[in-house]
Amino acid sequence: MERLIAAGLLLLLLWCQAAAGVGGVVGRRPPTLARHYHHTSSSSSRRHSAAAGDDAGVSVPAMVQYETRHYTQRLDHFNSAPASYATFQQRYLVNDTFWRGRTAPILLYAGNEGDVELFANNTGFMWEAAPRFGAMLVFVEHRYYGRSMPFGGREAAFRDAGTKGYLTVTQALADYASFVLSLKANLSAPAAPVLVLGGSYGGMLAVWMRLKYPHIVMGAVASSAPILSFYGLADPYAFYDRMTDDFKSESKHCYEVLRDSWAELDSLLATKEGTARLKSAFNMCNGSSVGDIPSLLESAVVYAAMTDYPTPSGFLTALPAYPVREMCRAVDRSGNDTLSRVRAAMGVYYNHTGAAACFRGEEEDDPYGMLEGWDWQACTEMVLMTYGLSNDSILQPPWPFNLTDVVASCRNATGLPPRPFWLETEFGGYDIGNVLKRSASNILFFNGLRDPWSTGGVLKSISDTIIALVEPKGAHHVDLRFSSKGDPEWLTRVRAKETRIIARWLKQYYSDEAIST
Amino acid sequence: MERLIAAGLLLLLLWCQAAAGVGGVVGRRPPTLARHYHHTSSSSSRRHSAAAGDDAGVSVPAMVQYETRHYTQRLDHFNSAPASYATFQQRYLVNDTFWRGRTAPILLYAGNEGDVELFANNTGFMWEAAPRFGAMLVFVEHRYYGRSMPFGGREAAFRDAGTKGYLTVTQALADYASFVLSLKANLSAPAAPVLVLGGSYGGMLAVWMRLKYPHIVMGAVASSAPILSFYGLADPYAFYDRMTDDFKSESKHCYEVLRDSWAELDSLLATKEGTARLKSAFNMCNGSSVGDIPSLLESAVVYAAMTDYPTPSGFLTALPAYPVREMCRAVDRSGNDTLSRVRAAMGVYYNHTGAAACFRGEEEDDPYGMLEGWDWQACTEMVLMTYGLSNDSILQPPWPFNLTDVVASCRNATGLPPRPFWLETEFGGYDIGNVLKRSASNILFFNGLRDPWSTGGVLKSISDTIIALVEPKGAHHVDLRFSSKGDPEWLTRVRAKETRIIARWLKQYYSDEAIST
Repeated sequence: MERLIAAGLLLLLLWCQAAAGVGGVVGRRPPTLARHYHHTSSSSSRRHSAAAGDDAGVSVPAMVQYETRHYTQRLDHFNSAPASYATFQQRYLVNDTFWRGRTAPILLYAGNEGDVELFANNTGFMWEAAPRFGAMLVFVEHRYYGRSMPFGGREAAFRDAGTKGYLTVTQALADYASFVLSLKANLSAPAAPVLVLGGSYGGMLAVWMRLKYPHIVMGAVASSAPILSFYGLADPYAFYDRMTDDFKSESKHCYEVLRDSWAELDSLLATKEGTARLKSAFNMCNGSSVGDIPSLLESAVVYAAMTDYPTPSGFLTALPAYPVREMCRAVDRSGNDTLSRVRAAMGVYYNHTGAAACFRGEEEDDPYGMLEGWDWQACTEMVLMTYGLSNDSILQPPWPFNLTDVVASCRNATGLPPRPFWLETEFGGYDIGNVLKRSASNILFFNGLRDPWSTGGVLKSISDTIIALVEPKGAHHVDLRFSSKGDPEWLTRVRAKETRIIARWLKQYYSDEAIST
Repeated sequence: MERLIAAGLLLLLLWCQAAAGVGGVVGRRPPTLARHYHHTSSSSSRRHSAAAGDDAGVSVPAMVQYETRHYTQRLDHFNSAPASYATFQQRYLVNDTFWRGRTAPILLYAGNEGDVELFANNTGFMWEAAPRFGAMLVFVEHRYYGRSMPFGGREAAFRDAGTKGYLTVTQALADYASFVLSLKANLSAPAAPVLVLGGSYGGMLAVWMRLKYPHIVMGAVASSAPILSFYGLADPYAFYDRMTDDFKSESKHCYEVLRDSWAELDSLLATKEGTARLKSAFNMCNGSSVGDIPSLLESAVVYAAMTDYPTPSGFLTALPAYPVREMCRAVDRSGNDTLSRVRAAMGVYYNHTGAAACFRGEEEDDPYGMLEGWDWQACTEMVLMTYGLSNDSILQPPWPFNLTDVVASCRNATGLPPRPFWLETEFGGYDIGNVLKRSASNILFFNGLRDPWSTGGVLKSISDTIIALVEPKGAHHVDLRFSSKGDPEWLTRVRAKETRIIARWLKQYYSDEAIST
C-alpha cells in the first residue's frame, strides 16, 4: 500500500516509453514504475481492496477511522461555457474525532493520483498530529482518480481527449479551493485555519495550493515534492544519477553487477539458448515470461531507491528495512554468475517473506485507477524531466536526454503536443528563492536525499517560514508515514520539527486573527 | 476617450437591468454606464476612431508612439482537450524608445474591457515614467476585446455561450503570463523586471496577476481597482451612497433637486401632457426621444462622480474640471422648475462646449466592442455587488439590495447561473490584510474617494510593500492620466510617490538578483 503511494509519482515514467514502444524514440528507458505497479498490485489486489474497505489481512492502524462524503464539484472552473457547469461527485474522507471546534485546525490532504483511501490509510503523520492540534482530518480525492469521476464514471471520463481534457492540475487545485470553502461554510467555521499536506505529486499540489490560494490554506507541508523537475530547472540526469549513487553507497560491486546485467539479459533474451537459460534460472509464474525480467529488475532497482526506508515497510509485499542495502547484500553474497545475482536482488524486492513461489510479470489490471489518469497527466502538463541516463548509470545503456524526443513520444501517445513549459508558467520555479521570499510564506519542504525525486525538490530554506528540511538518509516522503518503534532518531526528530513548525504557524495565525486558543 | 476607459468598469451595471428589462426584477436601477457609453460614443465615433489610429482632432500627446504586434495565444490554458489547443492572435503595443536593455524594466499595462489602443493613449503615467526608468512599455489587449478575438473574429467569438465561455478572468491572466514569458524570451531578457499596471478592471487584473504570477510580475500598480466589490466584502449600498455624497458635498440643494427629479420625470413621461412638456423643454435630436432623459441624467450623474477630475478632461465631449461642482452650480443657478435644472445639469455633462445642438439618446452601436464582452463577464464571473440604493440616494426610488434578484436577472440574461462567489474563491478578499501581509508584496493600490468605485478598493496599507494611497479629492484612476499644468498639488504628489515606490521595488529587485544598474 505504502509502496503504491510512493510509486504513484513515478507512474509518469511509463508513458513516454509506452508511447514510443519498445525500440521507439525513447527506447527501453526510463524504467516504468507503472509496470512495477502492475505486477505488484495484480498479485495482491485482494489485499488492496481490503485496505480500501474490509480488513482482510491489512494492518491499517486502528486509529484510521473516517466517514466518506461527497461534494458536488464543478467540471471546469475557468470556463463559462454551458458544458463547464456540469458537475461530478468528489469524494472526501473526514475524521473529526479530535477536532476542537470552529476555530481549531483542519488538516487537509491534497489527494494525488490514486484512490484517496490509499492516502488516508498511509499518511500516519496526519493521524498522529490530529490529537496534538485538536485537528479535523480531511482527505480529498483528486478528480479522475478513485471514485471522483466526471461524466458519471470511469469509462465515460476516459472516453477520449475531450473528456480527459478536464484532468489538469489547475482544475484539481480549484476543486480543492472550492471544496474547502464549502466545507468551512457547512461547519460554520470560517476562521478555522486549514493546513494542506501532501506527498509526492500530492506535495506538489500542497505547495501550489499555498501559492495560489493563500486565502484558503494558511500553510503547506510538502513532502518529496519535485516541483523543480521541469525543463530547465533541474538536471535531467540527476534522478537516475541519484539512484545510482544509492546503490554505489552500499556496494560498488553490487552497482557494477546490476549496471552490467542489462546487456547480459538482453543478449540472453535475443537467443533461444539464452531464453532457455533464463527459464531455468528464474521460476516465472504461469502467464509470465522471462521477457519480463528486465523490467521487473528495473522496477525493483528504482523502487528500492525511492522507498529506501529505515524500517520494514509494505502492506502488499513486505520490504525489509533499507531495501537497497538488502538488495546489494543479496547480490554480493550470491554465486558468481549474473543470473543468480539478479535473481537474488529480485528476491529481496519481490519475495522478502519467501511466500511467493514464482515471479509474476506485467499485467494490465489497474485496480486503483492510477494509470489512465497519470498517463494522461504525464504527457500533457506534468512533463517531468527526469529521463536522462548517464554513461555510468546503474540502468544501461545510457540515454542522452533530449526534449524533442520526449515531446515527440508524448505527442505520438496522446495525439496532442505536450506542454512542457506550462506548469512553470503557471507556478514558477525559475529563481524560486528570490520569488518566494517576497511573495509566499508557510511552506515546509521535506526531502530525503536517498530519494531520486529529491533532485527536483526545494533543498534550501528560503525564509523564516519557507523551510526546507533535508535528510541525507531519508527516502520518498518517509516523514509522512506512521511512526514506528524502529524509527531512527533523525526521523523522530524531523517529525517533531515539522510538528513544531506547524504549531508556530498556527500560533501566528491565531495571533493575526486575534483568536484566543 | 478617457471617459470611455473610466466608464468601462461600469458597463457591468447595464446587464442585470437590461436582463430584467424595464420594470423587471432589478427595475430601473442601477444606472447604466453602458447606456452612457452608447450615446456619448455614438455621437463621436469618428473621433474615437481617430484616437485609435488617425489624428483627426484628437489630442493624444505626441509621445504616444507604438508598434502593433501579435502573439499566438492558446484558447484555454486550463484544459487539455483538443479544442483548448486552438489559438488566436492577441494584439499588443510596444514602445522601446526608452528601454535601457536586457535588465531594464518592462512596464506592462494589463488590458481591460476595450480596445487596447484606448488604454495606451490614455495611461499617461506609463508614458511619463518610461524615460525615468529606462523602461519598455507594453500594452496587451484582453481576449475578446479590440482585435484580440478567438475563433477568427468577433462574430464567431460571440456566437453563443460555448464560444463566449473562454472569456474569463483566469484565462486572461494566464494569457498575460504566457505572453510575458514569450516576450522576455524573444528579447533575451529573462531577468528584466516586469511591473504590471492597470486601472479599474485593469487594476483588478494587475493585482490578481501579482498575486497569482509573482514569478512573472515583480510588482503591481492597481489604480481604482474594486477588488472588494464582491458579495459579502463591501456594503452593496456604498457605491451609490458615495456618489450621493459627492453631490451633497457640493450643494445640498442640488442633491435634493436631482433626488426628486426622477419621480417628476417618470410622472411626466406617464402622460401625454407631460411628454409634451418634456418635448418643449428638451431639444432632443432626431431619432431620440424624451423617454431617454432619465437614463441620460442617470449616466451624467454617475459619470460625473466617477470622473470628478480636477482638470478639464475628455477627448470626446469636453468636461470641465470638477464636473460634479459644475453640474451642481448649473442646477443651483437655473430657474425654479425641475425641468430647467435637469436640463442645465445635462448641459454641463453633454454640452459643456455648447457645440451640441440637441440631446442624443441611447443607441446600439459599440465601436470599441466593449459591450458584448463586458455584458458576458458581468453576469458570469464579475458579479460586482454595487446595486443597492439607499432611501436617500440621489437616484430614486430606493432599491433594497437583493442577491437573489441579481442572480435571477443574470440567469435570465445568459441562460446560465452567475457565479457570484467564484472570484472570491479564486482571488480571495475576505480578511485580505492578514492574508496578503503573509503571502504577497509589491502592490500599490490607488483610490480616490470621490470615485464611487473606491468603496470596493483597498484603502489601508497592509505592509511596507503593499501600500494603499488614498486621495480624498481623487476620482477614478486619476493618477494614471497624463499630467497637466493645472494638476493640483496633491495629484502631482501622489504620482511622485508612486514613482518613488516603483523605484524602491526595482532597487530591491536588482539587489535580490545581484544585478548592478
